[in-house]
Amino acid sequence: MTVAFTFDLKATDGKARSGVISTPRGEIRTPAFMPVGTAATVKAMMPDSVAATGADIILGNTYHLMLRPTAERIDRLGGLHRFMNWQGPILTDSGGFQVMSLAELRKLTEEGVTFKSHIDGSRHTLTPERSMEIQRLLGSDIVMCFDECPALPATDAEVARAMRLSMRWAERSKAAFGDRPGHALFGIMQGGVTRELREESAEALKAIGFDGYAVGGLAVGEGQEAMFDVLDYAPDCLPVDKPRYLMGVGKPDDIVGAVARGIDMMDCVLPTRSGRTGQVFTRRGVVNIKNARHADDPRPLDEQCTCPACRNYSRAYLHHVFRAQEIIASMLLTWHNLHYYQELMAGMRAAIAEGRFADWQEAFHAQRAQGDIPPL
Amino acid sequence: MTVAFTFDLKATDGKARSGVISTPRGEIRTPAFMPVGTAATVKAMMPDSVAATGADIILGNTYHLMLRPTAERIDRLGGLHRFMNWQGPILTDSGGFQVMSLAELRKLTEEGVTFKSHIDGSRHTLTPERSMEIQRLLGSDIVMCFDECPALPATDAEVARAMRLSMRWAERSKAAFGDRPGHALFGIMQGGVTRELREESAEALKAIGFDGYAVGGLAVGEGQEAMFDVLDYAPDCLPVDKPRYLMGVGKPDDIVGAVARGIDMMDCVLPTRSGRTGQVFTRRGVVNIKNARHADDPRPLDEQCTCPACRNYSRAYLHHVFRAQEIIASMLLTWHNLHYYQELMAGMRAAIAEGRFADWQEAFHAQRAQGDIPPL
Repeated sequence: MTVAFTFDLKATDGKARSGVISTPRGEIRTPAFMPVGTAATVKAMMPDSVAATGADIILGNTYHLMLRPTAERIDRLGGLHRFMNWQGPILTDSGGFQVMSLAELRKLTEEGVTFKSHIDGSRHTLTPERSMEIQRLLGSDIVMCFDECPALPATDAEVARAMRLSMRWAERSKAAFGDRPGHALFGIMQGGVTRELREESAEALKAIGFDGYAVGGLAVGEGQEAMFDVLDYAPDCLPVDKPRYLMGVGKPDDIVGAVARGIDMMDCVLPTRSGRTGQVFTRRGVVNIKNARHADDPRPLDEQCTCPACRNYSRAYLHHVFRAQEIIASMLLTWHNLHYYQELMAGMRAAIAEGRFADWQEAFHAQRAQGDIPPL
Repeated sequence: MTVAFTFDLKATDGKARSGVISTPRGEIRTPAFMPVGTAATVKAMMPDSVAATGADIILGNTYHLMLRPTAERIDRLGGLHRFMNWQGPILTDSGGFQVMSLAELRKLTEEGVTFKSHIDGSRHTLTPERSMEIQRLLGSDIVMCFDECPALPATDAEVARAMRLSMRWAERSKAAFGDRPGHALFGIMQGGVTRELREESAEALKAIGFDGYAVGGLAVGEGQEAMFDVLDYAPDCLPVDKPRYLMGVGKPDDIVGAVARGIDMMDCVLPTRSGRTGQVFTRRGVVNIKNARHADDPRPLDEQCTCPACRNYSRAYLHHVFRAQEIIASMLLTWHNLHYYQELMAGMRAAIAEGRFADWQEAFHAQRAQGDIPPL
């Protein structure tokens, strides 16, 4: 069993990278997509099904778990892995992003953030120190620094203020995290879409020193073009020998573009949330299963897909159970979407390892350009 | 592969019976509990998980399926088994009971029932002939006669009228069903809680001749005592060498009492519906997982249960995901409840085969009398 947290960069192809993160709980093949398990469950999925899609690691949300069932309760029950029956690595966010997007009556100071729970109105405080404590109680394998992520658009001054506060919090996070062999602490680069601020943030993080580095503050409304503009230089500001994690991204083409720019890890609620709203990702683009044209279609979502939804069911069935609001619709469509995302990552890992990532990208975009199969 | 539909009564113990129904789609061990798959899905379960609980056969609802996605569509798509990916036997009800309980603007004549869909208000007609056609289009293995089931309490005259209409409809059902090797048609005894009417109904059905006989018109509000009073004589009016099916029953102690009185098959939405509302069946009785006393309880629902909910999760976790309205709560609790029901049936089958059913019943009631495990 590996005791240390290590990153082995095995291949590069252009800026794209593939490698393996080793943790005491197992290996994470990169580029990696992390399904989101907000409230100690990847919604509508059994943990063994999540693993069966090819996911090596999942993400848990500090904000949700601290409110319900609470970090102290999860700790008493043996930690998050045991609680939710997921034995692989878990990355937890710091709570900072979701406090700003979900909580009520937020008050931000140098010390941290006080807020009211969106569930029951109870009052809570998050600071770098408390975020580290919560993530330790959860038993997280990859812990994220506590940061402030302003929504875009924001003024340069506002973005700079938030970034510099986040860098001071990063230092406090590192001090509070301490020395925990086998567990990793990742810093989070902020700075919006302003290159000088991104560079300043990267330098500050590197001076502190982390086990991995996240690019934060993107996918918050700036659009893909602006995001890619940042990703054209931001990963290059980070150490080559540490994993780079793009937070909260994204659509399949966002993910491919991010990997092409040197990103190693990503997470997003899109495949799971879309599964519950009938949006299906396939190699030929997005399919809306609610559409009446599927009602009599005996074909699977994707002939080449090996997930249970595609192996065992017609579009007509998936359309029927979605319209009838049956739980199995969420179960099957979520499974398919996660399977698709993991196949995407596996395809990129193989292409990078074999030095054919540019061809792979071209084929990826060409397939999508075809659009969904025509009606019978 | 068996081509015929046969029933092999293997053992009796008092009035309790155990045997095997053979169909071209597989064997059904009796006494059998049939999970309900109303809208072409056993709610919150994958079909392979339903089979893993030990279910040999499931039930489909003609009323729901004729409205959405329609029997004709399911037929075009290869039948209900293929549509919903359940390869074992399927029993379908006739639509009669649910028309009376769910549909709007019902109009009953000698010919049949016209009604408005509860889904979209569209107008439909069900007759014995149309019910047989729908069940044939679905590809049902065990087809039920079209009947009228009045809600209790009802006057004797009303119960008698409905029973005699149902017997005329049973004759029309048999004629419309025709000769379909490997498929079975079951007659349905009516007559409320009035012995003379039940006996008259049984004689009428036997004169027509069916592959199996259901006891209908119970579990409609009369209470367990009145139901058992009927079951004390009703099964004895039916042929010994054919399966006897008690429709829509029930709670675990209803099921045990019915088996003790000579019933071979049952169905009920209770284990699945209760799974979604947090009511859990265990050998020590019913547990309400929503109750705050489970919030910190690291123990499984039932130490002896081998279902995934009990093997992999604490009561604290199940409480958390139920309160957080996570889909996995419905998935796990439904799985547990179906597993419990199937274990109950397996326990009874073994006890009957070994001539110790009275002892088994005593132990069943003694365990339930203990109540749930005390809080830690």
